[in-house]
Amino acid sequence: MPKRIHNFNAGPAALPLPVLEEIQGELLDFKGSGMSILEVSHRSKWFDDVINEAVERTKRLLNFGDDYDVLFIQGGASLQFCMIPMNLGLEGRPVEYIDTGTWSTKAIKEAGIQGKDVRVIASSEDEGFSYIPKDFNVDKNAAYLHFTSNNTIKGTQWARFPETPGVPLISDMSSDIMSRSFDVRPFGLIYAGAQKNIGPSGTAMVIIRKDMLERVPDNLPTMLKYTTFAEKNSMFNTPGCFVIYTINLVLKWLEETIGGLENMDRLNQEKAAIIYNFIDQSDFYKSTAAKNSRSLMNVTFRLPSEDLEKQFVDNALNEGLGGLKGHRSVGGCRASIYNATGIETIKALVQFMVEFAKKEG
Amino acid sequence: MPKRIHNFNAGPAALPLPVLEEIQGELLDFKGSGMSILEVSHRSKWFDDVINEAVERTKRLLNFGDDYDVLFIQGGASLQFCMIPMNLGLEGRPVEYIDTGTWSTKAIKEAGIQGKDVRVIASSEDEGFSYIPKDFNVDKNAAYLHFTSNNTIKGTQWARFPETPGVPLISDMSSDIMSRSFDVRPFGLIYAGAQKNIGPSGTAMVIIRKDMLERVPDNLPTMLKYTTFAEKNSMFNTPGCFVIYTINLVLKWLEETIGGLENMDRLNQEKAAIIYNFIDQSDFYKSTAAKNSRSLMNVTFRLPSEDLEKQFVDNALNEGLGGLKGHRSVGGCRASIYNATGIETIKALVQFMVEFAKKEG
Repeated sequence: MPKRIHNFNAGPAALPLPVLEEIQGELLDFKGSGMSILEVSHRSKWFDDVINEAVERTKRLLNFGDDYDVLFIQGGASLQFCMIPMNLGLEGRPVEYIDTGTWSTKAIKEAGIQGKDVRVIASSEDEGFSYIPKDFNVDKNAAYLHFTSNNTIKGTQWARFPETPGVPLISDMSSDIMSRSFDVRPFGLIYAGAQKNIGPSGTAMVIIRKDMLERVPDNLPTMLKYTTFAEKNSMFNTPGCFVIYTINLVLKWLEETIGGLENMDRLNQEKAAIIYNFIDQSDFYKSTAAKNSRSLMNVTFRLPSEDLEKQFVDNALNEGLGGLKGHRSVGGCRASIYNATGIETIKALVQFMVEFAKKEG
Repeated sequence: MPKRIHNFNAGPAALPLPVLEEIQGELLDFKGSGMSILEVSHRSKWFDDVINEAVERTKRLLNFGDDYDVLFIQGGASLQFCMIPMNLGLEGRPVEYIDTGTWSTKAIKEAGIQGKDVRVIASSEDEGFSYIPKDFNVDKNAAYLHFTSNNTIKGTQWARFPETPGVPLISDMSSDIMSRSFDVRPFGLIYAGAQKNIGPSGTAMVIIRKDMLERVPDNLPTMLKYTTFAEKNSMFNTPGCFVIYTINLVLKWLEETIGGLENMDRLNQEKAAIIYNFIDQSDFYKSTAAKNSRSLMNVTFRLPSEDLEKQFVDNALNEGLGGLKGHRSVGGCRASIYNATGIETIKALVQFMVEFAKKEG
């Protein structure tokens, strides 16, 4: 039996154990092909089934139809930061962004490099990005409004998405895609690096409304045009086959074991509540995000001193709880509790927190 | 025991069985971390060791030092087609290309989209790209000379690389990297999609001479600048961790089991000779590449009719030999025999070819 820890990594992050076991079981012979999934041609029936299944599961889970394409594009969310303004910016019209910290800020910077008329219509920088802005006006002439649905580093999350007067929403959902169900129709594009909620690192999932494809300029490099991926089912060139294969298994687990995104959402609510309720009644631990902006995916908290935080992280690892260190840019502690994190892992964390506070508090 | 076929896929392609077995063995617990390699943070000591080992092995195998950086960039060779002129083209100076078929042609097209002064100084299009051009003059003012070292589709390969008057060579070595040793010093940049000779799909390996980094324009999108990857050891954002991990295992196999690139080259020469020698004495099979331009990696051949070719491919698969169909753009048959293809697989192919010719010839 391999030893397994409780994994609170922010990404790459925990994957469902049954998914890992399925990968392991068929690693030398994928579906009777006599080849590993690592060796199968992306032009084969075997891989076609994999990618088509992943697309269909995404459509079922998020409840949309053929008015959207599901694409797999390498380079992570960071490459999307430049592809979005490059492909979807419109001549003479502003692109609007809401700044909720590190990843939003990077997306804004890349739009600027593209020479777009970038307007940051709201920001929570005044309070260290500890909350989700509420008051802002969207210019109905804007090409799009971009926001980051969950902020991995600051531990904040949009509980309800911004409303716009017909302006397409674009969202970086890297750290909360597939964690809840929502109405995709206001979205022109949704993107997510796979390595938090849906798979290992190595691809972004991009969900694009087909009317947005009409905006793509002809003269872009082929590999930077959304149309290239949409026209060829993400296989203009060889995609990251193994990552797509694993995503498909994670989506299958979401459908067949969890029973869809409403169930997943309920579980995620329950998991987060256990930790936040404990923190809120504690004098030792302190939540860093504004109460009404807290993330269900990344629970950020502080201890009375940095020394105690270091000791907390080290002792936790000795007890089999890994990845509890906050992002290096902000310090503190963070428990990332994506879909694959089970309730028993949450309980193990709280139990450890109780004991650590008793000993050191 | 899983059933395994003889795999002649052009890419994704066969991987060494011991590499697959090692991946399988540690998939649930990577090096005692209590996590899968799919779940380990790219900012951890565990992954740092993996990527650093892969870089060091590359340096040792290809015999170069700190004057080059080894980068892992997602998006395959196809993204490199645009990144190269974007990063390394120089104001007012031409970029030169040699056209040896499909992949060269695509690289040329992307340089054109970048608005560069593109000069195709040699091409074998006049004879269906069946040979490697010999006569060409390189402008000593050119920013670089680009060529494709091995042509997967047409089955041709540069036996000796072009010589230039100090102009940096740039080569797409996707289908023959690590198949032989050579002098890297004339090269400004070498790139290769991983999915043929060094790993699964999902990353390109890019080897760049450090002086070339001075050419990178400031105003490019962050994720399209070679400097972004060079400054952060390919981890400005999350890289394709699993692919890099597998590459490291393949390189370890090359160093420790094969014993380096001179041995690998000798084996590859031997493997290819067995098939070409058989084809040359046959009236039934016909090699498509010019004799002095033949690839050691992709053996392309025709049978007397397309019907027989179809039957050949189908019967072969029934006998446990897969992936022998030629590229859809040229038809015919093709045996891709990269590093991981063992001599017993070559012998099984020739035996099948003998029997098929006897029966149908």
